[in-house]
Amino acid sequence: MPDPTFGYVTPENLALFTDRYELTMMQGYVETGHEPAATFSLFFRKLPPDRGYLVAAGLEQIIACVEDLTFGDRAIAHLEARGFHEGFLDRLADFEFSGDLRAVPEGTPVFPNEPLVEVTAPIFEAQLLETLFINQVGFPSLVATKAARMRDVVDRHGGDQSLVDFGSRRAHGTDAGMKAARAAYVGGFDGTSNEAAAEAFGVPAYGTMAHSWVQSFPTEREAFEAFVDVFGEDSILLVDTYDTIDGTELAMAVAEERGVDVAGVRLDSGDLVGLSKDASAILRDASSRGDHGGDWSPGVFVSSGVDEYVLAEFLAGGGVATGFGPGTALTTSADAPKLDAVYKLVAVERDGVLEPSMKLSAGKVTYPGEKSVRRTETHGEYAGDVLGRRGEDGPGRELLVDVYDDGDLVYDLPTLDEIRERRAREVARLPEAVREIEAPETYPVEVSDGLAGLTRALRDELSARVGD
Amino acid sequence: MPDPTFGYVTPENLALFTDRYELTMMQGYVETGHEPAATFSLFFRKLPPDRGYLVAAGLEQIIACVEDLTFGDRAIAHLEARGFHEGFLDRLADFEFSGDLRAVPEGTPVFPNEPLVEVTAPIFEAQLLETLFINQVGFPSLVATKAARMRDVVDRHGGDQSLVDFGSRRAHGTDAGMKAARAAYVGGFDGTSNEAAAEAFGVPAYGTMAHSWVQSFPTEREAFEAFVDVFGEDSILLVDTYDTIDGTELAMAVAEERGVDVAGVRLDSGDLVGLSKDASAILRDASSRGDHGGDWSPGVFVSSGVDEYVLAEFLAGGGVATGFGPGTALTTSADAPKLDAVYKLVAVERDGVLEPSMKLSAGKVTYPGEKSVRRTETHGEYAGDVLGRRGEDGPGRELLVDVYDDGDLVYDLPTLDEIRERRAREVARLPEAVREIEAPETYPVEVSDGLAGLTRALRDELSARVGD
Repeated sequence: MPDPTFGYVTPENLALFTDRYELTMMQGYVETGHEPAATFSLFFRKLPPDRGYLVAAGLEQIIACVEDLTFGDRAIAHLEARGFHEGFLDRLADFEFSGDLRAVPEGTPVFPNEPLVEVTAPIFEAQLLETLFINQVGFPSLVATKAARMRDVVDRHGGDQSLVDFGSRRAHGTDAGMKAARAAYVGGFDGTSNEAAAEAFGVPAYGTMAHSWVQSFPTEREAFEAFVDVFGEDSILLVDTYDTIDGTELAMAVAEERGVDVAGVRLDSGDLVGLSKDASAILRDASSRGDHGGDWSPGVFVSSGVDEYVLAEFLAGGGVATGFGPGTALTTSADAPKLDAVYKLVAVERDGVLEPSMKLSAGKVTYPGEKSVRRTETHGEYAGDVLGRRGEDGPGRELLVDVYDDGDLVYDLPTLDEIRERRAREVARLPEAVREIEAPETYPVEVSDGLAGLTRALRDELSARVGD
Repeated sequence: MPDPTFGYVTPENLALFTDRYELTMMQGYVETGHEPAATFSLFFRKLPPDRGYLVAAGLEQIIACVEDLTFGDRAIAHLEARGFHEGFLDRLADFEFSGDLRAVPEGTPVFPNEPLVEVTAPIFEAQLLETLFINQVGFPSLVATKAARMRDVVDRHGGDQSLVDFGSRRAHGTDAGMKAARAAYVGGFDGTSNEAAAEAFGVPAYGTMAHSWVQSFPTEREAFEAFVDVFGEDSILLVDTYDTIDGTELAMAVAEERGVDVAGVRLDSGDLVGLSKDASAILRDASSRGDHGGDWSPGVFVSSGVDEYVLAEFLAGGGVATGFGPGTALTTSADAPKLDAVYKLVAVERDGVLEPSMKLSAGKVTYPGEKSVRRTETHGEYAGDVLGRRGEDGPGRELLVDVYDDGDLVYDLPTLDEIRERRAREVARLPEAVREIEAPETYPVEVSDGLAGLTRALRDELSARVGD
């Protein structure tokens, strides 16, 4: 039998969720007595295709990881069996994060080269966090961004349609399903179909019915009747199992016969624009008949391949819907499933002082030193950011906030609704051209004179002694 | 503080990892007393772009889910708070899978419309499994396929290079990192950099060093010396922090000075073909000097954006390497991050008999009834499959095997190495044109006369009574 914890990461093996080389280097640091303090910066080099901004997400998960990150007996036994040395393992058994961590709050739009997280700690500690941190921040940020784009499309069309995450089944495993549901909510979704995510994050869960419900009854009529009898006015009837228009008419007939003002119908295939118009006309007809007194307005809920591009086309084409259920495209960030997030050493202690550091690898240069990110605005709209050295003066508001100070959590975690509101407020203040879903304009991120000078000086110095 | 189990799925909330509508329908089945047996088929409609086949994976995880799937106090309390009814919750508290399950063994190449899993059980049970099963099978199959394509490229170039999963950090959460590492091994990788996956699945873990190691020392020389002093002949030195060629020469100089036959160097940026040739020439030179007696052959390990397309170009271009570390492209299946896997009702009990069922939704038609998949061969090469009705006679070998019988696990789980060997054997027997990594030929899957006839008859019958 497979191990019941098969494939899952729990507090018992969380610390092992790291790349082998982190552990190798950590043993090397210990055994060579080379244990300077160091600063690592987590950032990305390029926005994914067609993205004008990225919504930062995952900080709460990073904090949960730092709090949970200990090497218990199981982890130590594994590493011992794989040949790691005793003195090093003793150090791991005592592992506890004692450093500083600054980060951009979740829900904030961020841009290339801006640190989402910056860690200053003994290198032994800071090194370990790389794999886990990138893993915890990259994916949620991609999904929060994808969701924000869809919410923005709805907003721009002046709509107030609901958006519900329907994509857990196609997410990359269970953790991805959970993280996607949370990130979708951050990005402006109203809830999720995933009941476990609803429980974990306290967000609304929504659902209708599947084709299997309809097929499991001898006729579509019996299927609708049975559902309406149990769920009454909460019923949203899936109408495309056999024929969408006939199904919609049947749904309304059943509603009228049963005297139940059902919530609406769901369309899941075919020409969604055309069908949604026809279906909503049938619903309008039904609600204008009888004695509903005008207070019954059944809705059309649309699923099947919905993403920001489909949404924009649907709304521009005059499609009529009260809600959408994006699935696969959302939870896999299908058109941009990867973020080139990295966690790079940018400063290292020499003679008791943190000195800026960088590498020269082709195409992968990193700005050295601890950073500042300042966001400026004009007339309530964001005008650009300045990426500078930590502590450098400049215009605008600093984005990085203190999260850990000497190992103590000093950050008041916002609620998920507060994060969602930040996303709404901050994304709305980006220039409209930056928010376009295709070929967006580049948001200006300027490198401060201080940082530019430091980068130049360090590059010259390093180039001069290559091969030393 | 966040909940320490934040975002993770464990046996305590695993049963809630389902879409709300599954639970809604289940309550509906209970409250209407509509509880026929039913068969659901898990399959995909279309291969992802540029895929000629899909390597089935995830069955072991499905079995683990079935074994772990119970509604404990936490899950019941959540559902009660969200308004589900007492009688239904009592049924959930007793949930245990009592049905039959057939599946294609992991490591088997599969094609559109072929069931990877088929469940026959009381509809109350079978309905619940949809979301979780699709989630558990889709992603691992994508990654196993991606990995198999890379292994195949290496094989075709007559190489025996190692392939190591370096992509946990970019996977969509921790579960995805774990599942990707396992699936990569199934697909022919030699191991993973992920230590937690190495522990969970008993596969080798590999790692070298990061740029942070090099940068953390005052000079590259000191960094290499310190590493070689600790890790000796296991050392693989990362040489591109400042300049790849200078770094490679320095690595060899340090190896000679220390008298240590290091394992090799890693390249992580720049023109990989050209640099790998130059670096391997430097390594060859070094190993031919001194008194190595010919038994030192340090290797060149290549990372940075490796996937099957890059690999093919690298090898065709005469690049020289002893191993590769594909990362992001592998663990996100970047060029094909989604599989349109579905779990569809194909038969339902009427008057005590399982009757084939289908829907007519535009573009989403499903073949009705329980299935058989038979694979035929000619001269040791697979010639095509026949998708038929269960029990139908035909040529070739049946792919679906019994996994659960009346709720009892009747399947001898193969080891991961056995699964990996099955993948090697079975993929190699596919026609070469089907295995092309771009524009592969379509592998022939024929629908049996029996299934074609049934589908026609049922479609006609359903079309005739649409709107009933």
